[in-house]
Amino acid sequence: MRFSGDPTVFGNLPLDATCEEAVVESLHNRKYNGYCPSVGIKEARQAVADYVSTPTSQVEAEDVILTSGCSHGLEMLISCLADPGQNILLPRPGFSLYKTIAVSLGIRVKFYDLLPERSWEIDLQQLESLIDDSTAAIVVCNPSNPCGSVFSEEHMRDILTTVARHSLPLIADEIYEHFVFSGFKYHSFASLSEDVPILASGGLTKRFLIPGWRMGWIVVNDRHDALSEVRIGLQKLSTRILGPNTLVQGALPRILRDTPDSFYRQTIDYIEENAQEFYRTFRELPGLHPVMPQGAMYMMVGIDMDSYPEFHSDVDFTERLVTEESVFCLPATCFEYPNFFRVVLTVPKEKVTEACQRMRNFCEHHFQPTTVRNGNGCAIQAGIALNGSYSAEELQTVPGK
Amino acid sequence: MRFSGDPTVFGNLPLDATCEEAVVESLHNRKYNGYCPSVGIKEARQAVADYVSTPTSQVEAEDVILTSGCSHGLEMLISCLADPGQNILLPRPGFSLYKTIAVSLGIRVKFYDLLPERSWEIDLQQLESLIDDSTAAIVVCNPSNPCGSVFSEEHMRDILTTVARHSLPLIADEIYEHFVFSGFKYHSFASLSEDVPILASGGLTKRFLIPGWRMGWIVVNDRHDALSEVRIGLQKLSTRILGPNTLVQGALPRILRDTPDSFYRQTIDYIEENAQEFYRTFRELPGLHPVMPQGAMYMMVGIDMDSYPEFHSDVDFTERLVTEESVFCLPATCFEYPNFFRVVLTVPKEKVTEACQRMRNFCEHHFQPTTVRNGNGCAIQAGIALNGSYSAEELQTVPGK
Ligand SMILES: Cc1ncc(COP(=O)(O)O)c(C=O)c1O
Ligand SMILES: Cc1ncc(COP(=O)(O)O)c(C=O)c1O
Repeated sequence: MRFSGDPTVFGNLPLDATCEEAVVESLHNRKYNGYCPSVGIKEARQAVADYVSTPTSQVEAEDVILTSGCSHGLEMLISCLADPGQNILLPRPGFSLYKTIAVSLGIRVKFYDLLPERSWEIDLQQLESLIDDSTAAIVVCNPSNPCGSVFSEEHMRDILTTVARHSLPLIADEIYEHFVFSGFKYHSFASLSEDVPILASGGLTKRFLIPGWRMGWIVVNDRHDALSEVRIGLQKLSTRILGPNTLVQGALPRILRDTPDSFYRQTIDYIEENAQEFYRTFRELPGLHPVMPQGAMYMMVGIDMDSYPEFHSDVDFTERLVTEESVFCLPATCFEYPNFFRVVLTVPKEKVTEACQRMRNFCEHHFQPTTVRNGNGCAIQAGIALNGSYSAEELQTVPGK
Repeated sequence: MRFSGDPTVFGNLPLDATCEEAVVESLHNRKYNGYCPSVGIKEARQAVADYVSTPTSQVEAEDVILTSGCSHGLEMLISCLADPGQNILLPRPGFSLYKTIAVSLGIRVKFYDLLPERSWEIDLQQLESLIDDSTAAIVVCNPSNPCGSVFSEEHMRDILTTVARHSLPLIADEIYEHFVFSGFKYHSFASLSEDVPILASGGLTKRFLIPGWRMGWIVVNDRHDALSEVRIGLQKLSTRILGPNTLVQGALPRILRDTPDSFYRQTIDYIEENAQEFYRTFRELPGLHPVMPQGAMYMMVGIDMDSYPEFHSDVDFTERLVTEESVFCLPATCFEYPNFFRVVLTVPKEKVTEACQRMRNFCEHHFQPTTVRNGNGCAIQAGIALNGSYSAEELQTVPGK
């Protein structure tokens, strides 16, 4: 059960009334009870096209396929772009679903690194070194789960330049699109891509706070007609489960058009405040190294494992944390990234304060100053990262302190 | 686009108000916007268990998995029960989705025959002859699309006895459960099975006339603990797209409990009347051999191809029918069963009458009495059927008539 990425569990972040009204309207006009085309109702697809189009990336209804949530979109994309035996490149740390889908289809995975000391930008040199003749696609996630990072336009252009050299398509998981903190700007990969075909996947799940409604989409942003076969494949795959719930499809145009900006802003401001409170606290806790997020709903926190010799791993650390203090954080081993844990930022304010207090207890209780630290520690602050495992500079601390 | 099996397209068969009220309630209590367990919400699963349980087949919430329509349930079942290289047995004529799913998974298919002269009962001897060491499961569909047949209790017991001899599980497509004409009785396979594990798939699609809502389910009816691994596999598969729309899940208990019997009765009576009108007409048309259905929403009609020498096949016949008379019937080649076509029985009364009139024109215009008929003709009335292709007895007609 993936309650963790669910912004609705605490009830503090309700959906906007527009969504409810749109579904009631959809029910009452009785046009949305029957089967629809398996790629979705035309008006709903057009509404998504209008929603995601930018001056540099215009799409139309026929470029959109509606899916049962973004998960379903990702599954269709991965199974359509890669054959068994081929490989796809995935981010590390990254959302575990990509690997789960690929492995179940006999597709191999390789991980490219995100660099915490550069706000989780991609290590492009290392990424490029992974590409081989069997590489079928590269998955990127921006804004990121679990990192909460938002790529700059410049970094995105660098990514696209790198990918273009290898004529590969990009699968862009943009389920957190527009979900960025003040001062940051969201760009879709499609809006910046000149040559790289982009298959973007998004949905209502996060920004609209209705994951249970299972409304997602794929947007095909072709370049140089590279995706004609992929389009046919996606169309065929869509017939398997015949598209998402039609009531929500009927409601989609109104939801995307009429949800007020104030609703989005409120949600993000709330989450950003939580991020700041967590960040301020964790910075001061001994042996923890939070990386301040720029969007989405998560923060990654590095654990200096040498300072917590009682625990063998981030899994151990988080298990003890929930046992002793009832604070649940996912160990980043779940994201192929040991020695970190992920904090969810959607919790109610009073719980944030309480969680911070308990984390303080926990860390102060278990932290042990080390005389000589090396090896597996987390050295974000030292700024040295090698392929996701850290070699810290030796630090002298006052003996016995 | 599969509008053909969609009972809502003409607007003459509206959903029951209970469904709408239940969704509005589900929306307003705001408990159904978040992620739910990927197998579905407990209360909704329990509601399905209560709905399908019989004195001889009791199931509980944990035996139920909610799916995005019955199609999704069937996909999960087929991919869970059979490995690539194994084979599954499918009905002929039968719903094409089974084969589509299997082939896309690298699972081989073999067809067992349904016998029109016995109201589409299974040719059990022929079925048994198909079973080999690589057979993983048998799919049955009752009531049937495209046949409109409803198996008798006796025939179902015979099927189960045959299957039990080979220790195979049965995938029972029961999307048309309870959808039977007056005088017939519906039995679920689970209610009659002593030894055969039954994996049933059903949903709201047909009986509740809301296919677009995409609410289906799998019910695991184990026997002798044969399905423990299958349960785990299904659970894992369900995490791929995280279950059906939660608003409908929230509405499910009320829908299944409160929809009045009069609603079901009305729908079925309507369809049965249409069946009778079509049947009466087709019986009298030269060279057509309708098989009277007992439930579901379809009727199969045999074409005596020798009497229609202008047409090479049922595909040809139905294409010309739509071109000349704008009456659209699916050629049964779509169901792996040439020389028949399928009529949909959910159309509005006035269209039935009109369609009958046009069919009469069409048949009277194209029919050519044959002097000697043999070979590919349809010989239901002669009662001779060999593996789905017909060898008619020679008939003498008055020369020149
Ligand atoms: C990065 C990312 N992609 C996709 C998803 C799945 O979204 P959906 O619930 O729309 O399937 C999630 C959900 O947590 C996510 O974090
Ligand atoms: C025999 C049969 N099984 C399954 C289905 C699919 O049902 P659903 O729309 O719930 O996926 C249909 C739809 O026509 C059908 O006729």
